[in-house]
Amino acid sequence: MSIASQSISLHKKNRGKFAVVTKMPVKNKKQLSLAYTPGVGAVSLAIAKNPKLAQSLTAKQNMIAVVSDGSAVLGLGNIGPLAAMPVMEGKAVLFKEFANIDAVPIVLNTQDPEEIIKAVEAIAPTFGGINLEDISAPRCFYIESELRKKLKIPVFHDDQHGTAIVVLAALNNSLKVVKKNISKARIVINGAGAAGTAVAKLLKAAGARNLLILDTEGIISKNRKNLSPAKKNLAAISNRKNLQGDLVTAMTGADVFIGVSKPNIVNEKMVKRMAVDPIIFALSNPIPEILPDVARRAGAKIVATGRSDFANQINNVLVFPGFFRGLLDANKYQISDKMYMAAAKALSGLIKKSDPNNIIPSIFDKRVAKTIARAVSKT
Amino acid sequence: MSIASQSISLHKKNRGKFAVVTKMPVKNKKQLSLAYTPGVGAVSLAIAKNPKLAQSLTAKQNMIAVVSDGSAVLGLGNIGPLAAMPVMEGKAVLFKEFANIDAVPIVLNTQDPEEIIKAVEAIAPTFGGINLEDISAPRCFYIESELRKKLKIPVFHDDQHGTAIVVLAALNNSLKVVKKNISKARIVINGAGAAGTAVAKLLKAAGARNLLILDTEGIISKNRKNLSPAKKNLAAISNRKNLQGDLVTAMTGADVFIGVSKPNIVNEKMVKRMAVDPIIFALSNPIPEILPDVARRAGAKIVATGRSDFANQINNVLVFPGFFRGLLDANKYQISDKMYMAAAKALSGLIKKSDPNNIIPSIFDKRVAKTIARAVSKT
Repeated sequence: MSIASQSISLHKKNRGKFAVVTKMPVKNKKQLSLAYTPGVGAVSLAIAKNPKLAQSLTAKQNMIAVVSDGSAVLGLGNIGPLAAMPVMEGKAVLFKEFANIDAVPIVLNTQDPEEIIKAVEAIAPTFGGINLEDISAPRCFYIESELRKKLKIPVFHDDQHGTAIVVLAALNNSLKVVKKNISKARIVINGAGAAGTAVAKLLKAAGARNLLILDTEGIISKNRKNLSPAKKNLAAISNRKNLQGDLVTAMTGADVFIGVSKPNIVNEKMVKRMAVDPIIFALSNPIPEILPDVARRAGAKIVATGRSDFANQINNVLVFPGFFRGLLDANKYQISDKMYMAAAKALSGLIKKSDPNNIIPSIFDKRVAKTIARAVSKT
Repeated sequence: MSIASQSISLHKKNRGKFAVVTKMPVKNKKQLSLAYTPGVGAVSLAIAKNPKLAQSLTAKQNMIAVVSDGSAVLGLGNIGPLAAMPVMEGKAVLFKEFANIDAVPIVLNTQDPEEIIKAVEAIAPTFGGINLEDISAPRCFYIESELRKKLKIPVFHDDQHGTAIVVLAALNNSLKVVKKNISKARIVINGAGAAGTAVAKLLKAAGARNLLILDTEGIISKNRKNLSPAKKNLAAISNRKNLQGDLVTAMTGADVFIGVSKPNIVNEKMVKRMAVDPIIFALSNPIPEILPDVARRAGAKIVATGRSDFANQINNVLVFPGFFRGLLDANKYQISDKMYMAAAKALSGLIKKSDPNNIIPSIFDKRVAKTIARAVSKT
């Protein structure tokens, strides 16, 4: 049976993946009086007098919402809230399994940014944090930045920052292998959506000086007309020489290709035109921009994908559970580039000696979430 | 240690009561590929093609939100969302323990009815139902009725209908004991908030013809000036003789007193003025309108309270878990008075032979939730 049909039948058998348990059982009158009335009245009163006690007396400080409007789900696009639910439940499962966070999937019946902001604001007192998920660009940028202004709990758009952090971690180790420096490397990012934008910003913050970013119309440059505000920002931090052209032009002489775009759009020829010891992160999932064996045949030194069946899996799950664990443990809500960089450094540091097939830890490496959590909470 | 301090220390030790578990573990690559990518893509696509499949392939159909704005929490009043959280978590625990429903506490940072409606509408695709909780009257009436118009999932304000159903069930059995008929009994309801209003409406629907309802200003009558729309409705279904006066007047000659009001406002004298074999439901919690031993000394034949340490505990928890179980199992969202009456009948039917100390099942009677669920899903 294919993975697809196995997955469908397992989801059917279990009726999804998310479930609730109680930390205080109610099997008799005594337990009822402690978990609910009359005992709970004292708990509520204590919090009414000192709202900070909600952190220690309720589940809030270990609860996050995984919020999506279903507008950009996996590689499937705008499939709406109901069809997004299995992915949000999956995310909730990963938060639980990897960092013991009680994550609740929340899918919204609106795709209007203002309404999304209002809804998240309204439910925010319930949660210790908000993980935005699979919300399309450029709406995701505005929604995240407004919510960060309004809320006193952390707001994290995983598709942006989770991806950026794990890419930076993998890139750190890859550059060590090929003995190149991030400040000099020519780095091509193909895809200027949520992930591409965040990757570009974080690499810039980490010292990259020679970035080219492409959208479906080619290299983003200040010369291009009708750029959206988000893309104008990208033009400002990349492409200093105002290069114009397509992906072939961009990849010629490049040290690093990072694809957060579409299946099969990179071919052997393009890899051959790159600089010596090319690094390829082909992150389109499940079908990468170029398959690892093809890229290697064409001379790629290091290839990473989003897939678990190849070496070097670059997957958000390496980041978001530990990142939120750190935020919740330290009760922090202001998120900074410094935190992203600390998380990336902590993650790459788990690989003691990088080699072309070992630039990033396995997602099942138990140290990962704890290490990232510590790095975040200390920053 | 008092119940209050025991409850606080248990909440602190457990950091609240609500937690999440996963129904599909993710301990290795294979499991990850089935619960998350790439397998989950097929599940999402299947739902995108046929949205009804969300009911069988996601957790939605067993998930409800327990939503509160913290405006009328237990007997504590308007203590706000954070202080309401322990109660909402408690409710979620009860849904899980008594009916295996995955209930998620959601507390809101707004008390504006329109904003509450908007927020619940926004998150509704996540859930199989909405349980409104501890929202003050008369806002709760409008919020519930608007949400029932807008949503295709059941919306149930437990403080209204849960209370009304269990009161009707207990009253059915009590009237049997004293051999009186609901259509002739003079019934006094003290309290015209969420609970009192719903009790009055349901008793009326069940055949009560001689109702008096009181708020803090006395008996509600068509003659009173400045009645709110909600209270005008109450005046229309009660007090046909346009009686005016206070609780003493109302209780004189009454067969049944139902208090959903304040501690200690009924005294022995008032009970003595009631008709023969008086029935007293003193539901103010934890301190009832009159203590059972005092009421009995004054001649009350049957006394019920909301408390677990006296006989005849009238508690919502007898109703809401099974009621929602029935709605979710039958995938029904339109809720009717018929359903309320069927639930009350099913509940009172569990007492084979009523006596003054046995008019309602124990909340730990395992048959309760199943019996109510069956009655609701069959209606």
